[in-house]
Amino acid sequence: MADSLNCDLKSLSPLQLFERVTEQGEKVRALKAGKAPKDEIDAAVRMLLSLKLSYKTTTGQDYQAGLPPRDLVLMNNGTNKEEDEDFVDPWTVQTSNAKGVDYDKLIVRFGSSKIDTDLINRIERAIGQKPHRFLRRGIFFSHRDMDQILDAYENKKSFYLYTGRGPSSQAMHVGHLIPFIFTKWLQEVFDVPLVIQLTDDEKYLWKDLTTEKAYEYARENARDIIACGFDINKTFIFSDLDYLGTSTGFYRNIVKVQKHVTFNQVKGIFGFTDSDCIGKISFPAIQAAPSFSSSFPQIFNGKENIQCLIPCAIDQDPYFRMTRDVAPRIGQPKPALLHSVFFPALQGAQTKMSASDPNSSIFLTDTPKQIKTKINKHAFSGGRDTIEEHRKYGGNCDVDVSFMYLTFFLEDDDRLEQLKQAYTSGELLTGELKKVLIETLQPLIAAHQERRKQVTDEMVKQFMAPRKLAFEF
Amino acid sequence: MADSLNCDLKSLSPLQLFERVTEQGEKVRALKAGKAPKDEIDAAVRMLLSLKLSYKTTTGQDYQAGLPPRDLVLMNNGTNKEEDEDFVDPWTVQTSNAKGVDYDKLIVRFGSSKIDTDLINRIERAIGQKPHRFLRRGIFFSHRDMDQILDAYENKKSFYLYTGRGPSSQAMHVGHLIPFIFTKWLQEVFDVPLVIQLTDDEKYLWKDLTTEKAYEYARENARDIIACGFDINKTFIFSDLDYLGTSTGFYRNIVKVQKHVTFNQVKGIFGFTDSDCIGKISFPAIQAAPSFSSSFPQIFNGKENIQCLIPCAIDQDPYFRMTRDVAPRIGQPKPALLHSVFFPALQGAQTKMSASDPNSSIFLTDTPKQIKTKINKHAFSGGRDTIEEHRKYGGNCDVDVSFMYLTFFLEDDDRLEQLKQAYTSGELLTGELKKVLIETLQPLIAAHQERRKQVTDEMVKQFMAPRKLAFEF
Repeated sequence: MADSLNCDLKSLSPLQLFERVTEQGEKVRALKAGKAPKDEIDAAVRMLLSLKLSYKTTTGQDYQAGLPPRDLVLMNNGTNKEEDEDFVDPWTVQTSNAKGVDYDKLIVRFGSSKIDTDLINRIERAIGQKPHRFLRRGIFFSHRDMDQILDAYENKKSFYLYTGRGPSSQAMHVGHLIPFIFTKWLQEVFDVPLVIQLTDDEKYLWKDLTTEKAYEYARENARDIIACGFDINKTFIFSDLDYLGTSTGFYRNIVKVQKHVTFNQVKGIFGFTDSDCIGKISFPAIQAAPSFSSSFPQIFNGKENIQCLIPCAIDQDPYFRMTRDVAPRIGQPKPALLHSVFFPALQGAQTKMSASDPNSSIFLTDTPKQIKTKINKHAFSGGRDTIEEHRKYGGNCDVDVSFMYLTFFLEDDDRLEQLKQAYTSGELLTGELKKVLIETLQPLIAAHQERRKQVTDEMVKQFMAPRKLAFEF
Repeated sequence: MADSLNCDLKSLSPLQLFERVTEQGEKVRALKAGKAPKDEIDAAVRMLLSLKLSYKTTTGQDYQAGLPPRDLVLMNNGTNKEEDEDFVDPWTVQTSNAKGVDYDKLIVRFGSSKIDTDLINRIERAIGQKPHRFLRRGIFFSHRDMDQILDAYENKKSFYLYTGRGPSSQAMHVGHLIPFIFTKWLQEVFDVPLVIQLTDDEKYLWKDLTTEKAYEYARENARDIIACGFDINKTFIFSDLDYLGTSTGFYRNIVKVQKHVTFNQVKGIFGFTDSDCIGKISFPAIQAAPSFSSSFPQIFNGKENIQCLIPCAIDQDPYFRMTRDVAPRIGQPKPALLHSVFFPALQGAQTKMSASDPNSSIFLTDTPKQIKTKINKHAFSGGRDTIEEHRKYGGNCDVDVSFMYLTFFLEDDDRLEQLKQAYTSGELLTGELKKVLIETLQPLIAAHQERRKQVTDEMVKQFMAPRKLAFEF
């Protein structure tokens, strides 16, 4: 029996095995507590030991009660050495490498697919125009099921875009613009509806904020998002605190996701502990639900099966791995994804730009002078210590933050290549490279500020009102 | 240091201690993993051992990772012997005693207060009429802060009533009527608004049901509740699946409760495990939120601090112990409670009547003939085996289910007392007692069915529409 058992167990995931061990442990305790016959208890204990052995064989670790296997994808790939790994979850990004996170490794760990030349070419053919610089330059570098989206598009079947933001403060920084700049482009080239979730409830749960403050931040952030130039007839921006109380479809999808995800699963995916509040524990379902068109009956005319495409930074992928796991079990299509790299902090690509560290960030509210000072003072340089050395050995674009920012914001491919060569050869000095960045960012942010001023309270209200968009379903 | 620590720890509850031990354990692991200096690790381990000792002293049990102290109230009272205890939680009621659960013990365990003669007399003075038979006969036997409600009432300050039902099937049984009969009486004598929650989301999460089916049951159950005779101008009945998506106040209160309750707490209160879905784990907040008037801005004109009184069966108390614990931390008044005993199964008071066991229940849809047959066939009798013995020794009203049901439904106190004496003396036979019950229940249920027929779809819709009620706030 033990043999056939082990045979069955081989097909189980580490988490499934973990749950089998836990259940069997509870059974043994119940038998003992109920003073069951000795042979019955013995048989249950033998089964328990056999299950624990399988767990150890599969995961390389001893079973520990209450501690499900962390980062399943990692384990499934048999590369369970966390020390040398970059750390990436929805709250923290950390690497010891000045070039930033190793994104190729991340693709393997997360089990997503690389956006390769073939896919970029296919996108170009489908939309009949040059792909966005974020695609050309590997800033959006990973995907899930993008080919399905293109299949659908080529067959004239519609889909929709979903992205979002956690409004933790009034101040957004330039890094926050990346998903919105790209999503705006996607919306324009594919001409599809877009929903933008502002997770003010998440920020209330995680931060020391009142619900009122979190909601205020959501509305302030909506202004910056609108200032990116989204089409009011094709875009719905919503605060969770508000929309949950105004939609008949959203909560139903949330509760469906919540029924199909266990605490063990969110513990494994997000690292929650028993001391976390039940709001955090159930929150992942709230970020999952907008992946299903039935969360927006007003937009999709109640239709359930409109496919969703989510452009987001790769650290949000754990939410959507979970969503994709649940989707077929609640009769919904899996959302497709496009993942971006992180926007590096001024101090270097070891961590991402964070609004809570003002010195790491260039804010959308910064003046031209502040932008100049921050870049000159804080932007980590790949240049040499002296002009002489720099001229002789050249700078290192792989770790130079100013150069990295230019790959995000400088549209002209040729100019970027020239800058790279000149900096690498030593012809271009750090101060000169920084000047190019300053001159690129200053007008970009000034223009954003100008557009933001045009965003009236009435416009914010309209964007955030649940309504039909300019699409028939 | 250990001494002053132990001194501090004495003021902590078992759960707080449990969380301190868990945190310290995590700290030790982190120090070891981070290869911290040996003396730092040693100090942390000593602290851990000291905390574990305090935990054992307080709870009488060894600390077990992932297993927080179950039923804190029990432990706080130092009577941690579960074997002889009745088992009562929101899903199961079980006792080995044919007289039913020991309610006096339950009051001590739950830390509530007995509804004594003084309180009943005070209610009588306040409302200027005879208290309901459920109060006179100890069917509502326990309370929390009912004196505060009476203080408020006497000072012309308003309050509101909140009760509910989990719509697990179309069929409601007579036991389900108890809270509604009593709530209707409370509403009439105090003239206050009433909200009735139908937890269709809970039933979806716990049972093998679709959301559509759960919502259908909610509407069907609303018909039976309306048939109890509630005033449409003073009563709001809501399905969670619906109301969550139509109220601006409800979700905000849910997320506030969810922020202030940890998984350890719901594990301790409700016995959830790591294998439970995150929907179950976060559900208690959804039953808690209607205790706060800001969940119903349309009724209370957005006012936050209207006190709430909850009449319910005692098995629902765990939800509201949790709610009362959270209330002050989110700036809300604690809800007051009135607790009823369970309605016994036909087979005896060892367990409560359950709709999922048709033989244990008299349904509101039963015909006069079905009622007669069920009582004659299944109602557990406290009578003797033969007529001769019964005449000689008399019957036992304490375990006789027919007599228990009559205490619920026979209004006439004198008649009830006569029946008791006659049955106890042996003058009245079991068949005769059952006949009295049958003749009491048949017209009561027939009248309910008649009223239910009058409930139109339009009325159900009106009762369930979020709206202002006939009260000014």
